[in-house]
Formats: sequence, structure tokens, C-alpha cells
Amino acid sequence: MKEKVTIFDSTLRDGAQAEGISFSVDDKLRVLKALDKNGVDIIEAGNPGSNPKDIEFFERLKEVELKNARICAFGSTRRPGVKAEEDMNLERIVEAGVPVAAIFGKSSIFHVTEILGTTQQENLRMIEDSVRYLKSRGMEVVYDAEHFFDGYKLDPEYALQTLLSAERGGADVLALCDTNGGMMPHEVEEIVKTVCSRVNTPVGIHAHNDSGLGTANSIAAVRAGARQVQGTFLGFGERCGNANLSQIIPNLQIRMGFDCLPEDKIERLTESAIRIAEISNFSLSGREPFVGKSAFAHKGGMHIDAVMKNPSSFEHIDPEAVGNKRRILMSEVSGRGTIIKMINEIDPSLDKKSAETTKVMDRIKELEYQGYQFEGAESSVKLLIRKILGYYKPFFEIEDYKTINEKSAGDNLTASAIVKVSVKGESIVAAAEGDGPVNALDIALRRALTNFFPQLKDVRLTDFKVRVIDSGATASTVRVLMETTDGQEIWSNVGVSSDVVEASLIALTDSLEYKLLSDMERQLREYRLI
Amino acid sequence: MKEKVTIFDSTLRDGAQAEGISFSVDDKLRVLKALDKNGVDIIEAGNPGSNPKDIEFFERLKEVELKNARICAFGSTRRPGVKAEEDMNLERIVEAGVPVAAIFGKSSIFHVTEILGTTQQENLRMIEDSVRYLKSRGMEVVYDAEHFFDGYKLDPEYALQTLLSAERGGADVLALCDTNGGMMPHEVEEIVKTVCSRVNTPVGIHAHNDSGLGTANSIAAVRAGARQVQGTFLGFGERCGNANLSQIIPNLQIRMGFDCLPEDKIERLTESAIRIAEISNFSLSGREPFVGKSAFAHKGGMHIDAVMKNPSSFEHIDPEAVGNKRRILMSEVSGRGTIIKMINEIDPSLDKKSAETTKVMDRIKELEYQGYQFEGAESSVKLLIRKILGYYKPFFEIEDYKTINEKSAGDNLTASAIVKVSVKGESIVAAAEGDGPVNALDIALRRALTNFFPQLKDVRLTDFKVRVIDSGATASTVRVLMETTDGQEIWSNVGVSSDVVEASLIALTDSLEYKLLSDMERQLREYRLI
Repeated sequence: MKEKVTIFDSTLRDGAQAEGISFSVDDKLRVLKALDKNGVDIIEAGNPGSNPKDIEFFERLKEVELKNARICAFGSTRRPGVKAEEDMNLERIVEAGVPVAAIFGKSSIFHVTEILGTTQQENLRMIEDSVRYLKSRGMEVVYDAEHFFDGYKLDPEYALQTLLSAERGGADVLALCDTNGGMMPHEVEEIVKTVCSRVNTPVGIHAHNDSGLGTANSIAAVRAGARQVQGTFLGFGERCGNANLSQIIPNLQIRMGFDCLPEDKIERLTESAIRIAEISNFSLSGREPFVGKSAFAHKGGMHIDAVMKNPSSFEHIDPEAVGNKRRILMSEVSGRGTIIKMINEIDPSLDKKSAETTKVMDRIKELEYQGYQFEGAESSVKLLIRKILGYYKPFFEIEDYKTINEKSAGDNLTASAIVKVSVKGESIVAAAEGDGPVNALDIALRRALTNFFPQLKDVRLTDFKVRVIDSGATASTVRVLMETTDGQEIWSNVGVSSDVVEASLIALTDSLEYKLLSDMERQLREYRLI
Repeated sequence: MKEKVTIFDSTLRDGAQAEGISFSVDDKLRVLKALDKNGVDIIEAGNPGSNPKDIEFFERLKEVELKNARICAFGSTRRPGVKAEEDMNLERIVEAGVPVAAIFGKSSIFHVTEILGTTQQENLRMIEDSVRYLKSRGMEVVYDAEHFFDGYKLDPEYALQTLLSAERGGADVLALCDTNGGMMPHEVEEIVKTVCSRVNTPVGIHAHNDSGLGTANSIAAVRAGARQVQGTFLGFGERCGNANLSQIIPNLQIRMGFDCLPEDKIERLTESAIRIAEISNFSLSGREPFVGKSAFAHKGGMHIDAVMKNPSSFEHIDPEAVGNKRRILMSEVSGRGTIIKMINEIDPSLDKKSAETTKVMDRIKELEYQGYQFEGAESSVKLLIRKILGYYKPFFEIEDYKTINEKSAGDNLTASAIVKVSVKGESIVAAAEGDGPVNALDIALRRALTNFFPQLKDVRLTDFKVRVIDSGATASTVRVLMETTDGQEIWSNVGVSSDVVEASLIALTDSLEYKLLSDMERQLREYRLI
């Protein structure tokens, strides 16, 4: 029987305090569902006393049914000199109508006297009263001991007294917070061990990543006896963020044998990470441990050779265990191995030494020199290889185009585009207005092409990134990365030019070509012709 | 006397294996100088036997004079069955003409037999011979024990034998590698302790971040006796990257009292991080511990209040210790405290309750709702506050503009812009061609304005980011973030529109306005008028 570690996610509360993160009420509901689907135990949803958005959110929560998670409302202990049952913020927590409450109190003498400005005794009473009151209203209560570790270093006995006050009040969990993120794993391990020997209530850990040690500190606490881990799924939070659950969960579950998520849920880790990043409008770093796009990507030639012999040679776990994928990258460092693999998907007769392989390699190098980067745009490479090997006939050609942006005093801004394409010798001109030149061009091009290829109607862009390559001004080369979907598959294409409209058009053209080609391949496979 | 930990940076070697990183020879030289300037001890510069780019780089290195660092060439132990003095790769390391060599060998039985395909005995001889040969050629030799920890778990005695072979050969450092990044800090600490008790040579640690534990594992090794830390400055590397020196150095030096960098160098940490990220064309995450833009940024209202009372309440170290800065963010979470601070810089008579403050807050909320995000664009907020409070008279106004992008069959692409601006009642029209519509508009606008404001000639854009706000297609709202410099100051502005050209123009206008305003303020200060 594996030992349970409760996963407490605060993406919607502490995570919302991250720079660059701003959730709408709908976003919050979508994150909530994604977390629940991934099997976390407790979702800290917000502070029902803090702002209108959270108040509306808790209202709407009442209609949501969750499969795994219990929802938690966050707040602070009662104010000094006020009775718990008369404290507005505690009342709001109760009114939120959720099963769990997390209330933070001061566990550091410095914060009691300097920041809060009350007495040590009153602070202990505030903790005990507030916990007891919420317990009396039937809630499961987590006491968040803010600045616990810093406080313990200043005055261990007082810090422990705050925990014992929460325990007397009936707290279900005592969560020890490294609020400033300055602790080291060996300190955390030692202090948590001492705490566990002094209290009878389960202990939790709430770490931050200011020293790059959020994951390590959470693990150290569990080794010392903590059985609840608080964090945010992708590490969102104030400053450098909270402890990152997408790192902590696989460490605890796969490597240390604890039970954090149901077995079938840990395989959804990568999917959930991508989903939550998308809702949060956050660019998930490729090198994110476990869930990043590069987490199991191999670039060095020797690494690639070894991984092809035996994946465990350069992989610490099976990528599928966390729902991720192995990727073999192409680059000057990796050499021909990767390219030949893609070439062989199209023409199995070619090998490393074929003249065609050299031609493909040379062309890729040339384009990389111009600023292309294919590592994120596999479908552009596939098209490129087809073109070079001659397994390719363009579905359409763009003969010419023009875009105009205009704004006159008092007038609205207009953007329009005209494009002329030819398909099988037939030319067609289409024009469109749009929100900006790229959009106008996109609409015009599709308007022209759907006459020939009706399936392009279902295609839509899901992401559009522009990156300046040369450092410098607006005159620099830009690389546009487009992500497109037809509802079934997602593919990425790249375009480079000194002109953002032209770069977008290159990526757009590739993207539509890729769709038409894939559809054709799918059909051929369906009718067993390939 | 503080104990020394040698910092060994592999940004140019292991770092170059990261997805998305591709250094030109010039880039490598610039990174090298930045690392040297920051005081690292050893810079692993590349594998002189591996590719033409590295060969050219080592040639050019011979003309470079460094102030702090020793350069290191990387390679592997001799091939099986070949004499060390006849091994081509070892020869290339010697020919590189640098003082330090790092050679990796197999320390795991699995890799000896399964991946390399040689015998256990021959592998030990390969290690000893190769180290001895490089020592005989006068080099300082670091033996990189690849897969050491995995190997130790499989067969501790054999793993130790590989180290003892390197020691017999005369190695200066035995660097223990967690090549796959699957170790945990407590395991590292225990194994390094054992190793230190069995060898007489200084021990190093080479960790990876696949489990989010690269920093913690490096620190654990130092606690157990390791005295060289290998990593990459920003954590670049295969998969999830190498151990991140910009995190490890301040932990070891500021928190644990080791001597890693000269005292005056650690304050350059943030500057170096930004510089290396820029050369590498890498977007440094804001939440990067110690050196990220958000590392000391405060957003939650209670946090901001407490930090204003006493910064140590929510900061684990003084940001200046690593050359970083405290930032107070504005957002719906933080409330009025931040805004009022900026308002007071312009008008000290206003307070939280003033009608003007409410007006500013309302306008910011409205713009945020439209998709603006001011957290990265403080100078746009300053302008906005001035406008709302009436402390503002526009330096210029854009009356109308038009951009045209055109490409006809066979012709080159052209982009041109016409813009009409008025300054103090006088109108001027300017036109320009450019690389794309934004660039053409930028040139035309500046061409018009330099007639009135010659100082705008020195202004140039250093970064230009486009982000789609609504998930969706090219029709989505885009937010443009521009970073501009006049060589002395860097400032950021934001523009939002459904049209990328219009959004750019909004940011561009703000940026030029800000420059003109700052110059004026500077003058006033110089002549003691404010």
C-alpha cells in the first residue's frame, strides 16, 4: 500500500499573483476543471473576501460538479481584537459554501510585531479562534503558517506555539510555508522533522522557488514527514513562483513511490500542463522538467545514437509515464541521423550517403543561416524534404498580393488585401478586409482557395508568434511561427522574412499546403493505397 | 577565509546542445567575454574535434585575452584499442592550445557494455591512459565521469574504479555527472560523501535539471565535499538543461558562505544573465530565480504593503546583492498602492482617495480589459498617468498614415509607408520604404520628427514582441511590446490592436513620446528647475 501525499493546488489563488497572469472568471473555471480532471486532491480557488471577481467565481462554483477535487477558500485569521464569528473575512469563507478552508496566520515573531503590529499572545489567540470557528462551521481547515521557516530560525519556540494554537483549534493540516523562498533542502528536512515530532496533526509544505529549490524543498519536507504538498501546477506565483506541482508529483510518485494522483492520471500530466498554460496565456518553457516540449528531446549526435540503441541511456524516466514524447531534433550538432529518419518516411530507399540527403542537409543549413529554425516546425521540414526530393507538386501558387493599411484623421483604421492564386492553371483573385494585414491576407487567400479545397474552411490558427531574430530594430529579420489546427491535428509552420506580412504568408502557405497533403495521405491510407 | 568552489561553465559546449540554441562563432566569443567578465573560473568552450565551427572558434580564441577564466577544451577518452598519443580527438584537444581539458569517459557498466561496446578493463585503461596523456602535455585535466550516479547505483565498485583510474592517470578533478538528471539531492549527498572518502583528488559535480533538481543536487554535492560545480550560466543544455549556475552561485556564495566569484562580480549576475540571454536569442523567463525580471516583483496587495514597510518581509535576499531590482507591479490584485506611488512621482498632492486616482485606476482597468498589460511597460503607464492628470501636452500628433505591402509575380516585395504628423501646428509628411510595414512606418515617422527633435536619431528598438491575446486566428487582438534604448536608458512600451501595424504604431508613438519627455525632465533636473 503506497502512502498518500495530498496534492493541494493553488494555481487559482497564489498562481494568480504571478506577474503576467490574469484570469477571467471563465479562465478560472476552465483551470479548475483541468486540475480536477488530472486528479489533484484540493484546489484552492481564491479569496472570497478579496475582490468582485472571486466573489462571482465562488457563486458560479456552486453549479460545478467535480470528480476528484475538493475546493478550498483562502483567507487570513481573524483581525486583532475582533471575535472570530464577527470577522467579515472568515464569514465570507464560510459563505463560499466549499468544503475546505485555508487560512494563513503569522508564525514569525518579526511579522507579528513589525508587519501585523499586534502582540504575540493575541496572534496565538487569533490562530486558535479562527481555526476553531471554521471547524465549528463544518469545514476541513488547513492552517497556513506564513513565514514559518524564517520564523523558526528567529524563534523556534514561538513558531511552534503558533502551530500548537492551530492544533488546539482543531486544524486538519498544519502547512509550513517558506513564504520568501529562501530555505535550503537540508534546513527544511531538519525543521520539518522537529515539527513532526512536536505536533499530532498532519503537516504540509508550501514552498516557493526564489532560490531554484521549490521542488527540492517540497521533496525534503515529504521525506521528513510532511503529507500535504501545496504548490501550483505550473509553478505560477509571486516573484519566481510557487513550488511546481508538475515537477513534484512525478518525483514523489514515480521515483519515491508515494501516492499523489490516481495511477491513470499521472499520464495526463503533460496534457494538463499544456492545457493550463494555454488557458493562462503562458508560454510553457520547452525545457520545463517532465512536461516541456524539450524534456525528452535529443539534439547531440552521440545522445541521439545512444537513445536509438536504448532510450534509458539518456532519459531518466519513460516520457510516456508523464504523457510526454521523445523527440529527435535536427541541428548542426545532431548531424544526419534525424533528417534521414524523416527522409525515410517519404523515401525508404535513401540513406545517409545519398546525394539527396546531402541536398536536404545543405538546404536546411542554408535556411537556418537565413534565420529559419525548424526545431518547432516539423511540418515545414516534411514539406521541405518533399519539395527537394521531388515528391511534391504545389496545390496552389500565389501569383501576387497587396496589402494596404490606412488611417486618416477621424476615420477608422482599415486593412485590406488582394491576392491572386492559381490552381491547376486556373487563376482566381480574391480580396478581403481584415483586422490587420495578415488577417486580411489570410481571409483573402482562404476565400480564393476554398473554391478548390472546401476542407480549408475548418482550418484555424491556434497560435501566432513573432520573434525578432537579429537584435535590432523593426528592420530586423522576423521569424513567424504559426500553429494551426483542423480540430483533429495540430501542426506548426515557420516563415522568415524581414517583413512580418511576408513571413506570415510563408508560414500560412506552408500550413495550408500541409493540411491538403495530410488529407490526401489520410485518404490514401483509408483506401489502402499506401 | 572562505572556502573556494570552482565554477565551471559549459554554456558554449553543453549549452549549445539545447533546443533552440545555435551559436555563431561571434556569438561564442561574446558569451565567452561575458562569462569572463562575471568571474567564472573555467569556461568549457567546445569540442575542438567535433565540427568546423568549433575548430574556427578555437583558432580565434588564441587572440583573446581573458581576465579571470581559463579555457577548457572538451572531448572523450581515447577510442577502444587505440593508443592515447595516436587518438585524433585527444590530439585536437592538445592542439586547441588551451590550459584545461575536460574528457568524459564511461563510469556506468551499462554504458560500457551496451552503448560503447567494449570491456570493463579496456574502459578503465582508456580513462587512465587518456588522462595521463593530456597531463603529460601539460594540461589541467578534468575527468567527467559520465552517468556516474546511475552507474554507481548499478555497480558502485566499478563506478569507483573508473574514478580511481582517472586518479592514477593524474586527473586534477573528478567530476561526477548525473547525465540523465534523475538523481535526488539526498542520494547525491550520500554518494558524493562516499566518493570523497575513497579518492584523494578534488571532486566536482555535473548535474542536469530533468527532475527540477539541478540546483539542489549541485548544492547537495558541495555540502558532501565537492569543490567544483559544472553547469551553464542560464541552465541551457540537452532536454531540460544543465544545472543553472545563476541559481547555484548565489545559493553557495550568499547563503552558504563559499567563495565562487570575486565579491564585486556577484553583483553583476543579473546583468550577465541578460547579456547572455540576449546573445543567445533566448527569452529569459521573468520568474528565473535571482536574475529574472519578476524575481523581486511584488503583485499581491498585502505583499506590497509589507515590502514597503520592510523589504525583507517578502524578499529572501537584497535584490541588489545579485544586481537585480525590486519592482512593484500594478494589477487588479495589488490595488491602489502601486498606482498612487507612480501618481505621486508626478503630483505629490494626490492620495488614494482623490478623484484623479480613481480616474487613473478606471482607465487602467478599462485598458486591461481591452488586452493591455502594463506589468512590463512602466513607461506607458507613466505617460498614461500624465495624460489623465493633465500633466501632458503631446509633442506631436499623427494625423494619418498608410502602409502598402506589395508583391507581384517576379518582382521583389516592397513595403512603404506615408505618415503625416503635426508638431506645434505645423504639419509635415514623410514617406519611407522599409523591411515590412512596421519598419517603413518607423522610418517615415522618425524622418518626419527628427526635423523637430534631432535627438530621436539615437533612439533604436532593442526588442519587439508580438503576442496574440485571444486564442484564435490572425484576427485576434495582438499586443506589441517594444523595448527601446537611447544608449543610456532602456524603456518598454505597449500597444494593443487587432492590427499588428496599428499596435506597433501605438507602442512606437509612446516610446518616442517617452524619450522626449525624459530628455526634458533630465534637462530640467540639470538646470535645477525641478
